Amino acid sequence: MKHTTSVMSMKKSGKNRSHMVIPATLLLLLTPALSLGAPYDSMEAFRASAEYAAFVIDNLWILLAAAMVFIMHLGFATVESGFTQGKNSINVIYKNVFILCTGILTYGIIGFQLMYPGDFNGFLGLGGLGIGFDASDPVGMLTPAYGEQMTIYSDFIFQAMFAATAATIVSGCVTGRVKLSAFMIFGALLLAFCYPVTGSWVWGGGWLDNLGFYDFAGSTLVHGVGGAAGLACVIILGPRMGKFVNGKINTIPGHSVPLATVGVFLLWFGWFGFNGGSVLSANPAEVSYVFVTTAIAAAAGALAAMLTARVVLSKLDASMALNGILAGLVGITAGADVIAPFSAGIVGAIAGVIVVGAILMFDKLKIDDPVGAISVHGVCGIWGTLAVALFSPAATIGVQLLGIAAIFGTTFLFSLGVFGAIKAVMGVRVSEEYETRGLDLSEHGVGAYPNFAMIDSSFKSAKSEAT
Amino acid sequence: MKHTTSVMSMKKSGKNRSHMVIPATLLLLLTPALSLGAPYDSMEAFRASAEYAAFVIDNLWILLAAAMVFIMHLGFATVESGFTQGKNSINVIYKNVFILCTGILTYGIIGFQLMYPGDFNGFLGLGGLGIGFDASDPVGMLTPAYGEQMTIYSDFIFQAMFAATAATIVSGCVTGRVKLSAFMIFGALLLAFCYPVTGSWVWGGGWLDNLGFYDFAGSTLVHGVGGAAGLACVIILGPRMGKFVNGKINTIPGHSVPLATVGVFLLWFGWFGFNGGSVLSANPAEVSYVFVTTAIAAAAGALAAMLTARVVLSKLDASMALNGILAGLVGITAGADVIAPFSAGIVGAIAGVIVVGAILMFDKLKIDDPVGAISVHGVCGIWGTLAVALFSPAATIGVQLLGIAAIFGTTFLFSLGVFGAIKAVMGVRVSEEYETRGLDLSEHGVGAYPNFAMIDSSFKSAKSEAT
Amino acid sequence: MKHTTSVMSMKKSGKNRSHMVIPATLLLLLTPALSLGAPYDSMEAFRASAEYAAFVIDNLWILLAAAMVFIMHLGFATVESGFTQGKNSINVIYKNVFILCTGILTYGIIGFQLMYPGDFNGFLGLGGLGIGFDASDPVGMLTPAYGEQMTIYSDFIFQAMFAATAATIVSGCVTGRVKLSAFMIFGALLLAFCYPVTGSWVWGGGWLDNLGFYDFAGSTLVHGVGGAAGLACVIILGPRMGKFVNGKINTIPGHSVPLATVGVFLLWFGWFGFNGGSVLSANPAEVSYVFVTTAIAAAAGALAAMLTARVVLSKLDASMALNGILAGLVGITAGADVIAPFSAGIVGAIAGVIVVGAILMFDKLKIDDPVGAISVHGVCGIWGTLAVALFSPAATIGVQLLGIAAIFGTTFLFSLGVFGAIKAVMGVRVSEEYETRGLDLSEHGVGAYPNFAMIDSSFKSAKSEAT
Repeated sequence: MKHTTSVMSMKKSGKNRSHMVIPATLLLLLTPALSLGAPYDSMEAFRASAEYAAFVIDNLWILLAAAMVFIMHLGFATVESGFTQGKNSINVIYKNVFILCTGILTYGIIGFQLMYPGDFNGFLGLGGLGIGFDASDPVGMLTPAYGEQMTIYSDFIFQAMFAATAATIVSGCVTGRVKLSAFMIFGALLLAFCYPVTGSWVWGGGWLDNLGFYDFAGSTLVHGVGGAAGLACVIILGPRMGKFVNGKINTIPGHSVPLATVGVFLLWFGWFGFNGGSVLSANPAEVSYVFVTTAIAAAAGALAAMLTARVVLSKLDASMALNGILAGLVGITAGADVIAPFSAGIVGAIAGVIVVGAILMFDKLKIDDPVGAISVHGVCGIWGTLAVALFSPAATIGVQLLGIAAIFGTTFLFSLGVFGAIKAVMGVRVSEEYETRGLDLSEHGVGAYPNFAMIDSSFKSAKSEAT
Repeated sequence: MKHTTSVMSMKKSGKNRSHMVIPATLLLLLTPALSLGAPYDSMEAFRASAEYAAFVIDNLWILLAAAMVFIMHLGFATVESGFTQGKNSINVIYKNVFILCTGILTYGIIGFQLMYPGDFNGFLGLGGLGIGFDASDPVGMLTPAYGEQMTIYSDFIFQAMFAATAATIVSGCVTGRVKLSAFMIFGALLLAFCYPVTGSWVWGGGWLDNLGFYDFAGSTLVHGVGGAAGLACVIILGPRMGKFVNGKINTIPGHSVPLATVGVFLLWFGWFGFNGGSVLSANPAEVSYVFVTTAIAAAAGALAAMLTARVVLSKLDASMALNGILAGLVGITAGADVIAPFSAGIVGAIAGVIVVGAILMFDKLKIDDPVGAISVHGVCGIWGTLAVALFSPAATIGVQLLGIAAIFGTTFLFSLGVFGAIKAVMGVRVSEEYETRGLDLSEHGVGAYPNFAMIDSSFKSAKSEAT
Repeated sequence: MKHTTSVMSMKKSGKNRSHMVIPATLLLLLTPALSLGAPYDSMEAFRASAEYAAFVIDNLWILLAAAMVFIMHLGFATVESGFTQGKNSINVIYKNVFILCTGILTYGIIGFQLMYPGDFNGFLGLGGLGIGFDASDPVGMLTPAYGEQMTIYSDFIFQAMFAATAATIVSGCVTGRVKLSAFMIFGALLLAFCYPVTGSWVWGGGWLDNLGFYDFAGSTLVHGVGGAAGLACVIILGPRMGKFVNGKINTIPGHSVPLATVGVFLLWFGWFGFNGGSVLSANPAEVSYVFVTTAIAAAAGALAAMLTARVVLSKLDASMALNGILAGLVGITAGADVIAPFSAGIVGAIAGVIVVGAILMFDKLKIDDPVGAISVHGVCGIWGTLAVALFSPAATIGVQLLGIAAIFGTTFLFSLGVFGAIKAVMGVRVSEEYETRGLDLSEHGVGAYPNFAMIDSSFKSAKSEAT
């Protein structure tokens, strides 16, 4: 069984397992009689081996990590909803539910194969996925679907939960004025094509991986992609009404800090699965190390953002503290497995400073990012990717810069092109009347809080604060 | 040790392990010197065996799955609270806390044994459970409590978390006008007797299991039971005031869509444990397969419900999207281990269409189900149970129909009888004054949101929308 | 390797592993060529052994338990926020974010070593921790960092998540009138010194452990410490304005019962990791046993508190039901591994009665504890620690009383001294104007719910109810 060699000698960098799971699986699906991704004569022999227990544990951890990444989508939904106005709450949620569900299905139909293409011989999607195309014998199809560490189903569900993340980040950037249908089309296209293609360059064993670009769990590949796409969309879309008036920058506060807090904590919780699961096994040293760097970076990010906001804005700013947590998490994501815990604290703290600066900078640049997602995911994603080279020997600055430029550039141009085309064809922005009234009533016909007396926030907020 | 044979040769269908864990345990409890549910001479020998690691992993997964099913109860509390009026929020929560806690204790005292009765020789409850009746030597009692895949304690806690689900579903159906004490009595009786008895017919190795009825994780046994009981209670209880007025159907919107969203996402998260844990081991192929079918069905359910609501109601309806997720989840629950991933998408999508239609249908029938629970859990539970026969070879339509009829029929009649009797004795409905004022103030003496200015929703909502 | 003996023959009591993980690790860090905390010649030999799979599983469970304890911090944030007034919501969240993040970092810098001091030869903190001080070779540093059951990183992250808990409990007690900076200083000092020192007396193998004091997962060491510190702070701080007026006790209701509910359920969920992880392995019998006792105590606590509130207060009181859950959880924490399931129900039920009585008692004593944290964590922590002696043979009443006195006394005096000193230097209480206006606007410059019309709760609540 010639693929055995590649399984054993595979290079381990980030989520790159194109030489591990997929080829074996595909082979096995085509020749179900041979079976097994390891040198065992039968499932019985594999089950009786010492390796089997390790396989079961690794697989269980990937599944649990997938469930934890899933809960990040609730985190995104609540943090984006909490940080936007109450008149747009339902709209945010509707968008995020759509993106999550579309992301899972799209990834099954096309994205999974696009991202890990190495050994698929068939056409795109239909045929080569191993997902969902042998209804006549699902169990028979499963039996041989073993890589060394997880089944193809575990692999798929973990990756699919990741995939939806990028587009969900965009959802936060465009909130409050995007036309829902335009966003839905854009998000689906981003998920189906852009994210898996740039992902394949690194995790699929592509050219950036060959050059030595290092992005453990996706500071650039996931968060950076979301930030770059969000930036392109916001530039095309323009700011919300009342955000920038006569040279003044108005703060439009989110409608529920507790709701946003729920979101940030759930994101942190899920990030233990996002980063920890990216080890792609339950290896005790590696997973526990990643948990520690992840937690330390988040904690340092929050404290640094609190301090920065105190100094720069003279405020004890809870929103900045929450964004500081996320900044630290995004910052450590690229190097969570190679940056030392103490250094992880430095990386996180710098991310916490950066995020406050970036939010202020985008305001100055009149780029309206209601929830700060471009700063958190885009700018801190860049920082985190560079930090790998600064705080570990896993990569050099040159190749990290190249990778950032390639992936941000591609995503940004793709997004400009696609969102621009959508604008030309059908428009991307709701009417002023819709925006003033709020997207919940305008697009969905109901308010999010029908039993509560609401303040007309669109009017009120526009004059609440000036810089 | 004669029970060894049955352990090894047990038939695996759904949660049926009556011939596996319980008899061994009971025997072992009675003869603590013999011990062990597998052919090992001592715990030391078992610990040194290759099977031991698998046992530890399987057991850990069941415990984690139990914790995930536990979190579904927070999901139910928040989705039911979010989808009802703000004046009834505390009441919903109080009911759900009561049911969860009563469910756990009742299941320990009587339900567990009723549901898996095969080899208990003692009287009901006290004595045969293995739960809680040997305070003098808890550790000694534990040692032999091993099945092949989990301890009796893991088995119990996983099942107990399931048990409370059925009654919690009823809580959503009757919300807004039920007398709290009446519901509490009904819920406790449903949990103590009805749910475990119908459950024993399938998972306890009873007659429906022998006939070949297939319900992997409980589309009928859990969700269907909740829906059938809810329907009976709603028929006896009647609609909320203002719901159906002069032939018009009024929409009474829930008070917090974000709160309901938190609930639905937590339910989806927990469902990975609900379905994945029902594999009753950490078998990589089976658990990962179940994760994939569960996620695909949920995603397809949401998108189908979104589209259906857009076409039928001309609305981008977030509540329907959320109910579509739940519909897909309920729909796949009966066959999550045997329906192919692609087919799971079809099953979920059909469930998403069905749930919108069912909600509209019950409105036309003047059956007032405030949170749509009869549609989600009852109707989609039926659909999911039939889907096993349509999309897999695991069962035939005939026996699935028979099982649905038997379990829905029994639960419906039990509920009609018991809730009817409670009505006759003490009444089941609060006064008009209480209902108008809201159950939070009337029954609990406080409002859920005392710092917020509320709109008189009972008045307002009654004219908000007409069909 | 002389430490092998101590590894194998270690006494297992609560979290006492000072003779297990730390010394091995330190030795190994100093002599990276020797390595391994078990008698294996190389990592390869360890990996090939039957013990390796058990190690991987145990380690994974501890990491998952750490993530679950992490989510308790979201539970604390939401329950404390929900149970306080809407004008102080951001302040509560800011405090909790600060404490969690400071707790993780402080524990890494100093707390971990203070708490498990036995075999550290170096100075405090820097040098001996094994956390974060070998950036040049993180992977090499990891390899030998194995105890029998987990890596030092897993050990650290699990313990660090615990550490922040105590100070977060205090946050609830002082809410609504504490000066933020004063609390931040106090909380950091409590975490850095007091908690790890008293912790070392038991879990670090100190004098109380040697005397036979038993506190499995921290009824006294974690919850009691939080309650004792909170009591000292509240005495120094005094009650909120309007709480006690002219001899009357006014109820100041929390602003969101659903938010508090989210918190309590998340705490219960996390408690499965808090107690279950304290087994310090995935031992099936022990972990499943702990899950069952934990769930039964929580359920019994809720039902007993509901009943007690109904009888004593003539109310169906949802807040008391929620506090009853927490009371049951705190009550079983000290003996979750040694108290039988049936007895766990009794322990939980008594805790549920106690918590209602304690809340009323502190009101009578004019000790203003807005969220009931002193009653839940302090009083029920004492009860739970005593219950170990009453319901199991693991300890005697004498030594339990001694331990309670020592740890409560030390913490109370430390807190009186430190918080008193802070009061003398900079003051601990905000101005009356700040308090009336609410800390969100006064300290943070924004409201938590800017789109909602709020009632002036400070005025309104002060006359809402009198005893």
